[in-house]
Amino acid sequence: MLTTTSKRIAAPRRLLYGPGPSAVEPRAYEAMKEPVLGIRDPYFLEVMNEVRAGLREVFGTANRMTFTVPASGSGAMETAVANFVQPGSKFAVFAAGVFADRITIMGQRQRAKVVRLEKTWGEVFTAEEAEAFIEREQPDVIAFVQAETSTGAYQSGRAIVPAAHKAGALVIADTVTSLGAMPVELDAIGIDVTFSCSQKGLSCPAGLSPISISPSAFEKLQERKEELFTWYLDLRLMSKYFEPPHVYHHTPSPPLYYAMHGALGAIEEEGLRNRWDRHKRAGERLINGLMKLGFEPLVKQAEHRIWHLTTVKPPEGVDEAQFRQKLLDKFNIEIAGGLGQLTGKILRIGTMGPLATDENVHFLTEAMAACL
Amino acid sequence: MLTTTSKRIAAPRRLLYGPGPSAVEPRAYEAMKEPVLGIRDPYFLEVMNEVRAGLREVFGTANRMTFTVPASGSGAMETAVANFVQPGSKFAVFAAGVFADRITIMGQRQRAKVVRLEKTWGEVFTAEEAEAFIEREQPDVIAFVQAETSTGAYQSGRAIVPAAHKAGALVIADTVTSLGAMPVELDAIGIDVTFSCSQKGLSCPAGLSPISISPSAFEKLQERKEELFTWYLDLRLMSKYFEPPHVYHHTPSPPLYYAMHGALGAIEEEGLRNRWDRHKRAGERLINGLMKLGFEPLVKQAEHRIWHLTTVKPPEGVDEAQFRQKLLDKFNIEIAGGLGQLTGKILRIGTMGPLATDENVHFLTEAMAACL
Repeated sequence: MLTTTSKRIAAPRRLLYGPGPSAVEPRAYEAMKEPVLGIRDPYFLEVMNEVRAGLREVFGTANRMTFTVPASGSGAMETAVANFVQPGSKFAVFAAGVFADRITIMGQRQRAKVVRLEKTWGEVFTAEEAEAFIEREQPDVIAFVQAETSTGAYQSGRAIVPAAHKAGALVIADTVTSLGAMPVELDAIGIDVTFSCSQKGLSCPAGLSPISISPSAFEKLQERKEELFTWYLDLRLMSKYFEPPHVYHHTPSPPLYYAMHGALGAIEEEGLRNRWDRHKRAGERLINGLMKLGFEPLVKQAEHRIWHLTTVKPPEGVDEAQFRQKLLDKFNIEIAGGLGQLTGKILRIGTMGPLATDENVHFLTEAMAACL
Repeated sequence: MLTTTSKRIAAPRRLLYGPGPSAVEPRAYEAMKEPVLGIRDPYFLEVMNEVRAGLREVFGTANRMTFTVPASGSGAMETAVANFVQPGSKFAVFAAGVFADRITIMGQRQRAKVVRLEKTWGEVFTAEEAEAFIEREQPDVIAFVQAETSTGAYQSGRAIVPAAHKAGALVIADTVTSLGAMPVELDAIGIDVTFSCSQKGLSCPAGLSPISISPSAFEKLQERKEELFTWYLDLRLMSKYFEPPHVYHHTPSPPLYYAMHGALGAIEEEGLRNRWDRHKRAGERLINGLMKLGFEPLVKQAEHRIWHLTTVKPPEGVDEAQFRQKLLDKFNIEIAGGLGQLTGKILRIGTMGPLATDENVHFLTEAMAACL
């Protein structure tokens, strides 16, 4: 017998200064109260279309095939890989973090020949490195991570995409952490396929993950002969729900769409560039404050840092796990530790959405100082 | 530029008398307002554990491996198939509806040898039929649909499971539409693996889908040698998030967990058997009322009907699409038409959760009478 579900939830109000889930935009919370609707209800389809239009804005794209995968960010990652990386094809991954490793595994599970260019975690690839790698490997598809959540490094893609296209390779970019808080610029950079999430730069709850596919990539997909292994994440089937006549594929989750609609509305009101600037300023203030306290940035060059996700090594003698626990106990603040080879070595601190303001950065820095 | 996302959503309050999404339990809406939490926040883990306990109750199981797939019901279906149906293995599907067809396709995409026993849609399989089929085919895995949403037929599994186990086959059951509103009884029937959804009998929004795996099936999975094609829906990875030390796999969506916690709490308060009875009574009242109006049940035998999903052929001369439109325009009521080979031929009417009461059935029947 259950003993406690009959009780009401009263979740503590944590300050989510981690790499995501991040603080949710108040308009997103508010929107989730709206009643659910059927999957082809005209009002729901209108919400869906507005969400798609808003996502095109934040992605910086005119791609018609911009919509949402009914899954978390890793589900959207698998959608990109499962549709575009074919068994036996050559798949080249720019690897300097946990999420590049995850893409690698997904490529292997598609039975592709996966090759990797490795780099020290926290660094980004130069155009020369990218070119040499791609020329040597002549891959069918390449993948890179625009904002590597495990290291805090930002790589726009400008150093990679031209070489990939010269070799005729399709480019998949992981924009899970960049979307909504810093430039993604799909069309300007020439990224063919990208996937993201809702619970970081977009300030939504998790569970609904944006994806965008260029017209030429979508055309290529139409020509794919070998059946996909996945039905649920099959973009050809999925896309038919988003376009008229809205053929049933999966049942969408209205509250998550409503939340994303509210969050995108807040971004529109603020202005995307203003939002970027706000996140940039917050990140700069934070790293400057933390360096004064003796924290050392993992990403050495400022221009390679994700604005809203700061990664630092704690000062000599500070145990990162104990430090995080202290922040949680004393200030109700959640930040994160490292992943993969950086476990136990770094802290990952997000300043996203409602928390990317001068005063919230000030509060966080003071709290961190008090816990040293 | 966006023109409308900056506006607030004001969704119409439809009466969702379709096969799902169904009306959401008020406590579920209320719970979604609670603040999101990090993926390993102790409070969140407590909510997650209570959701898992509540799901065991409605599933009728002691399976420790009972948790949620971060996807819609079809994503959970693919999880079951992708983990348990191996390439080259023999997969037998009891096929009498759209969702059995979907399972078939998923099995084919896993590169299994899929064999099917077909039956007229709206009918259920007898023990003799099941036995003969399974003896003949000697499959590795079998799948059946306990509540076929496309036809309204309920098949507990008692006619199928013994023969499957006698042949050493693992049994997957689709309980997408039965869970929360009528008996599922995994352990009593001996079902090895099942998947469901949130937006039908559980009265939650879509997006988070229950799954349950018996200890012996989970053990078998541990021994699986060939790598899965999917990483996102890999149960061995996914299960590690739900059990200590809660290894990161995907980012869960707190509002969907909160909603499920609220809905399961409401079920606990009402009592599961009371809830079943309420849905049974509502379904019986509805079909009796509709038969008086000249509707003809698709499922001939009353004991094979899903209590809370009534499927009927409209009276001679009534166009089902126009009829549905009239109901929507006049009464704000959504019901559904047929799927697959039943498109244009039947109506599918759900009386689930808050709508499974005498007065709501009365209101619906009166509204349908007025639209004839």
